[in-house]
Amino acid sequence: MDVKRIREDFPMLKVKSKKGYDLIYFDNAATAFKPYSVIDAVTKYYTNYSVNAHRGDYELGFTVDTLYEEARERVAKFINCEKKEVVFTTGASFGLNQVAYGYAGKHLQPGDVILTDEAEHASNYLPWMNIAEAKGAKLEFIPLDDNGMITPEQVEKMMSNKVKIIAIAHVTNVLGAEIDIKEISRIAHEHGAIIVVDGAQSAPHMKVDMKDLDCDFFAFSGHKLCGSTGVGVLYGKYELLEDMEPMLLGGGSNARYDMCGNILMKNPPYKFEPGTPPIEATLGMKAAIDYIDAIGMDTIYTYEHELRDYMLKKMQSELDNVEIYNADVESSIITFNIKDVFSQDAATYFSDKGISLRSGQHCAKLLMDVLQTPSTLRASLAFYNTKEEVDHFIEVCKSINKESMLDVFF
Amino acid sequence: MDVKRIREDFPMLKVKSKKGYDLIYFDNAATAFKPYSVIDAVTKYYTNYSVNAHRGDYELGFTVDTLYEEARERVAKFINCEKKEVVFTTGASFGLNQVAYGYAGKHLQPGDVILTDEAEHASNYLPWMNIAEAKGAKLEFIPLDDNGMITPEQVEKMMSNKVKIIAIAHVTNVLGAEIDIKEISRIAHEHGAIIVVDGAQSAPHMKVDMKDLDCDFFAFSGHKLCGSTGVGVLYGKYELLEDMEPMLLGGGSNARYDMCGNILMKNPPYKFEPGTPPIEATLGMKAAIDYIDAIGMDTIYTYEHELRDYMLKKMQSELDNVEIYNADVESSIITFNIKDVFSQDAATYFSDKGISLRSGQHCAKLLMDVLQTPSTLRASLAFYNTKEEVDHFIEVCKSINKESMLDVFF
Repeated sequence: MDVKRIREDFPMLKVKSKKGYDLIYFDNAATAFKPYSVIDAVTKYYTNYSVNAHRGDYELGFTVDTLYEEARERVAKFINCEKKEVVFTTGASFGLNQVAYGYAGKHLQPGDVILTDEAEHASNYLPWMNIAEAKGAKLEFIPLDDNGMITPEQVEKMMSNKVKIIAIAHVTNVLGAEIDIKEISRIAHEHGAIIVVDGAQSAPHMKVDMKDLDCDFFAFSGHKLCGSTGVGVLYGKYELLEDMEPMLLGGGSNARYDMCGNILMKNPPYKFEPGTPPIEATLGMKAAIDYIDAIGMDTIYTYEHELRDYMLKKMQSELDNVEIYNADVESSIITFNIKDVFSQDAATYFSDKGISLRSGQHCAKLLMDVLQTPSTLRASLAFYNTKEEVDHFIEVCKSINKESMLDVFF
Repeated sequence: MDVKRIREDFPMLKVKSKKGYDLIYFDNAATAFKPYSVIDAVTKYYTNYSVNAHRGDYELGFTVDTLYEEARERVAKFINCEKKEVVFTTGASFGLNQVAYGYAGKHLQPGDVILTDEAEHASNYLPWMNIAEAKGAKLEFIPLDDNGMITPEQVEKMMSNKVKIIAIAHVTNVLGAEIDIKEISRIAHEHGAIIVVDGAQSAPHMKVDMKDLDCDFFAFSGHKLCGSTGVGVLYGKYELLEDMEPMLLGGGSNARYDMCGNILMKNPPYKFEPGTPPIEATLGMKAAIDYIDAIGMDTIYTYEHELRDYMLKKMQSELDNVEIYNADVESSIITFNIKDVFSQDAATYFSDKGISLRSGQHCAKLLMDVLQTPSTLRASLAFYNTKEEVDHFIEVCKSINKESMLDVFF
């Protein structure tokens, strides 16, 4: 993989920090930079066929409809499923809320159990907490192992005939742990449960194959995948999509309705897509998938993991002022703290030296109890990051201590 | 208003149809074209500060947060409300669903009444139908007058102490009728009801002043306002926003939560904005508002209505093959049919001559019974349309008959 050439595709990698440093962006788990091809796809919509989808009876309307459905086809190929199993959403959060509201809300009975865990992002915990309360169901937590992993063995132990839904991440958001979804899907189905997967952190970094994973629902966002913000995908097995209520109602998702409360919804995926969709963002996401597939997801996976190993080893061998929370986890993320320095202060210091990384709880507030820290720093890598950037990061880490931070302002 | 100069700002107005006609776009009620300044705002995000909002502890994160909140401030100024009363959504449909789910869902009691009418877009009817059924409430329909208008007098007659919510459009989507929201708000409040306004068709075409209208909720979309698709605004009076449950849960909208089902939400508007927002679309919407305000909404309103009068008079005086459904309605829309020609066929013919307009039921299926037609053509104007375009439209109308359509293909 020619990283140097790839970096040319990203305008953001030409940006300098206020103090003139090259921008080192290690917050890829929050959102990823966009290559020119994505920007071009969005701009092309605005300049060449800027009309609504699923509406017009004119040339340009037909053009947009075609492109929009081609994007759906492209996503289906990307995650290996049927085109009709691809629901366009506004992001992973919406997809997970939709399943909690429309599937769990329809099927859960009092006393039923939803399995989740303390490593989940708020978007794959709060909707379940909410619907469990509304339906009189119970949330139970799969214990994490010492590395913050969810293992099939632990899931197996938690199973009973009361468990109807398992809601877990494919790759967790703070530690970056890769969970064995395929095996957990098998266990879920063996016990008559379904599995809902938060794929926000996996889809951008590894091959995700719906037929292979055999999960029931899978949600991810376009923007973490080098695409636009405001768009995402909810995959669902078709018979489950048919059996799910739409969270939103509006124009375009129904075939007819009347004044007496009768409504005939369209078939999935259209019944979940009322109103004007985020058209240019959807076309941007397609361009992002084209871009990523052209490099190759396996290539990206290998590169990112090698880079993370390089970074981890350097941190372990050259730094004595860091505490690392996920050293033993296969990941493209390093979660750490600088000893005796509050994470947000450290993040500000890094920013001052041109390095963008994230501090805080990363929307996974339950995990902070497990890690026994109020907050962490998270360096999350992408395929456009380099060893040179890591080297600079290590030097900056070395220079951090209580004294060096006294004159840092945002 | 210098239309010729304004037209230079829109790349779409340079597009030619397949047969080489200048593009005449009369489907502005579906979505509007974007000026270069909107495209620049979106592209600038991608190239200069393409990071997440409300997340980063670094320079660029701070830049995006600032721009994002400036967009909120700009919207507040545009509709004359407090900044904290502006909830960013994904469009008008989402906003209306949110109010139905989170406000009506929390407050409606069995036997309560929601007032609506047959001219509403599906997005301001189906969510109410749904929540009414869920809560054992009733939907009642305000009778339309002969012009398809909802008048304060008719609303007054429908009021009782059972009516808790009035859900109506500010400007209806098919006929373009401007409803007297200010007076209906007064009536609603006199009877202890709230009023929820679908502003999708008014915000792009006339001044909308929340303090003056005194409505309780008001939803609109960015893309009909020359902004990006995938973003919109829900205005709510602050105390009502405080009293409304969020439809979506996820990262960023809560202050803390635990494993026991406890959650502390942030204050409005943030409690309604979990997950990564459509950042570039929001910045695009701000640019669109800047653009529109620079021309002046009163100027736009006057121009569009004069152009519509010109078009209407020409249709009435020069054409004998059209039936017009909203001739007596103050509007920027003309809803019509070509006699003896199915609307979709006619739309295809118009498209063949370079004219984009819409056929069908326009997501207002109930209204078709009122109009006593299965579908209509809708020509909806914007401030960048011209008399010359209208003249061409009239000539094309003259040429339509059953025979002239025999060799039209899409």
